[in-house]
Amino acid sequence: MLDTALTGARRLRLSLMERVEERLRSFLAAEATRWSRVDHRGEAPVEAVSALVRAGGKRLRPAFCVTGFLAAGGDLGDPVIVGAAAGLELVHAGALIHDDVLDAADSRRGAPAVHTRHIAEHRARGWRGESRRYGEGVAILSGDLASVYAGELAGDLPPAARRVWNELVTEIAIGQYLDLAVAAESVIEPELSRWIAVCKSGRYSIHRPLLLGAAVAGRDDLAPEFAEYGEALGEAFQLRDDLIDAFGDSRAAGKPVGNDLDQHKMTLLLAWAAQRDEQVRSLLDEPEWDTVRIRARLAATGIGDQVERHIDDLVGRARDAIARAPVEAAWRTELAEMASEVAYRDR
Amino acid sequence: MLDTALTGARRLRLSLMERVEERLRSFLAAEATRWSRVDHRGEAPVEAVSALVRAGGKRLRPAFCVTGFLAAGGDLGDPVIVGAAAGLELVHAGALIHDDVLDAADSRRGAPAVHTRHIAEHRARGWRGESRRYGEGVAILSGDLASVYAGELAGDLPPAARRVWNELVTEIAIGQYLDLAVAAESVIEPELSRWIAVCKSGRYSIHRPLLLGAAVAGRDDLAPEFAEYGEALGEAFQLRDDLIDAFGDSRAAGKPVGNDLDQHKMTLLLAWAAQRDEQVRSLLDEPEWDTVRIRARLAATGIGDQVERHIDDLVGRARDAIARAPVEAAWRTELAEMASEVAYRDR
Repeated sequence: MLDTALTGARRLRLSLMERVEERLRSFLAAEATRWSRVDHRGEAPVEAVSALVRAGGKRLRPAFCVTGFLAAGGDLGDPVIVGAAAGLELVHAGALIHDDVLDAADSRRGAPAVHTRHIAEHRARGWRGESRRYGEGVAILSGDLASVYAGELAGDLPPAARRVWNELVTEIAIGQYLDLAVAAESVIEPELSRWIAVCKSGRYSIHRPLLLGAAVAGRDDLAPEFAEYGEALGEAFQLRDDLIDAFGDSRAAGKPVGNDLDQHKMTLLLAWAAQRDEQVRSLLDEPEWDTVRIRARLAATGIGDQVERHIDDLVGRARDAIARAPVEAAWRTELAEMASEVAYRDR
Repeated sequence: MLDTALTGARRLRLSLMERVEERLRSFLAAEATRWSRVDHRGEAPVEAVSALVRAGGKRLRPAFCVTGFLAAGGDLGDPVIVGAAAGLELVHAGALIHDDVLDAADSRRGAPAVHTRHIAEHRARGWRGESRRYGEGVAILSGDLASVYAGELAGDLPPAARRVWNELVTEIAIGQYLDLAVAAESVIEPELSRWIAVCKSGRYSIHRPLLLGAAVAGRDDLAPEFAEYGEALGEAFQLRDDLIDAFGDSRAAGKPVGNDLDQHKMTLLLAWAAQRDEQVRSLLDEPEWDTVRIRARLAATGIGDQVERHIDDLVGRARDAIARAPVEAAWRTELAEMASEVAYRDR
């Protein structure tokens, strides 16, 4: 009986997610057509966004938004939740496009990053001006367009949900900025790095989408348990991301491995290691980071195992929190299941 | 009697504009405080936006938004119009910050551009990584933040006004992209350049803000006359901008003069000149633009005088359109007055 209910919850979620996919697809297709009528070049920034969306990604934010909504008793036919969830995916697409410029990351989701593709096109065609400025310019505007479309799709949010949305999009920009500043200044402050990781990844990926879904359904009362679940799972998610970046293989991540280290990113994982190991800290304090030696030392300290145990704790906390949430049992089970899928996504 | 009415309309507009300024100031101050509590670095992107807003600018978009609202009979105490107008100024701030990266423009409103200031700081402090990537990264995120704040301030728009808002922000991104592409590819297509100019400047600066104000007041019936006025005046505004860029002095513009030419921007003015003068066209067709010779030829063709006459025609059309608008006489007079101020702002 539990199995049937579980399957039922997931089936509902997946059917709503299909509508989110369809909304993304039809919205972006209509925009591409509209602007290509002005000029054949007009669809390029829309296509940059579409290509990234089509290339996959985990759809983590729409999934938690939709699940928060359904768990909160939201109506499957509600068009507002479809727009909100589709909008979240475009917020994410815009953030990724800009992030890849900030990080000088050449690939994303197994394909060249937007700026990389347009720098190459500029070079190949011998266009005027500097190729880097052009390609990064196209990426800046494509990311801007993704954010604009996100706002349009989420335009009908009720006031409580709009507040959650505003928090989420503001935290991304502030979190990204602090990440950039801390890397440039080589700041080693574990508490600050933890805040940044929680802000720009955990809250944004799980906690806020879940609350957004609940708020669209009018269930602000779920905020305490959803927040506890989201915060714990968000941290686990970010730690897993850091582990994959530091030790994983790049085919699984769809992006170059070790990029955070190369970019001198003070990740949550590094902050942990620096707190626990004097040699890691002194390697980080050197004027030029030696990525090979840092990675070797991280492996030698057994930081991977420590973090794995911490992830287990966090997943336990997330599951405990959701077990207390006043929602149907099927949704508690579904959210507990999602916690494991997110925290152990490399298995 | 007409003078009294006119003064009354302007007084109302200016009092509402004061509330818009106060909303901008208090909103940004609260955000700076909030994020500086997380870390002293946290207020930097907020401060980048605030500094640009404080540095002046014409507040053209809020002014037309507020005037459209009052002309449409909107209530002076309505908080939604204050948020909408303040939001427009932040849309503009975000667009300018990104635009200056795209154009490699070093100064804005008489001060260093956001990226310029942060590139210099990175260099001076000897921080890690590439100074350009850091400074442009701060500008990308500060521009993103401005757009996020714009959406928050305009979060309570009624549906008809939201549609105008969505059009406006989408057109900016598409218009900016086409501008970039056309410059890189050295496209000489006067009709396309005209569309880009209308889209990214005219509509965005005057037409859409005016319609937005009317829509907040619930007067969608004003769209035909407001659109005719806004389109004509928007084109006049852009032509004036091009004239100042090509021939004006940089203190008046607050930015480097001739920058469009240096960046190979196919402005409305250049497109005009290329249509009317074979020598301008062949100069533009050369592999490397010779800005000095192009500017000299533009002066020799008397393009300035031709454009001045066209601006006169456009202002006449704007005034005719507004004379037919079903709004109080005082507002027709005020909008006619604003048309002259915008079109002849260098006098």
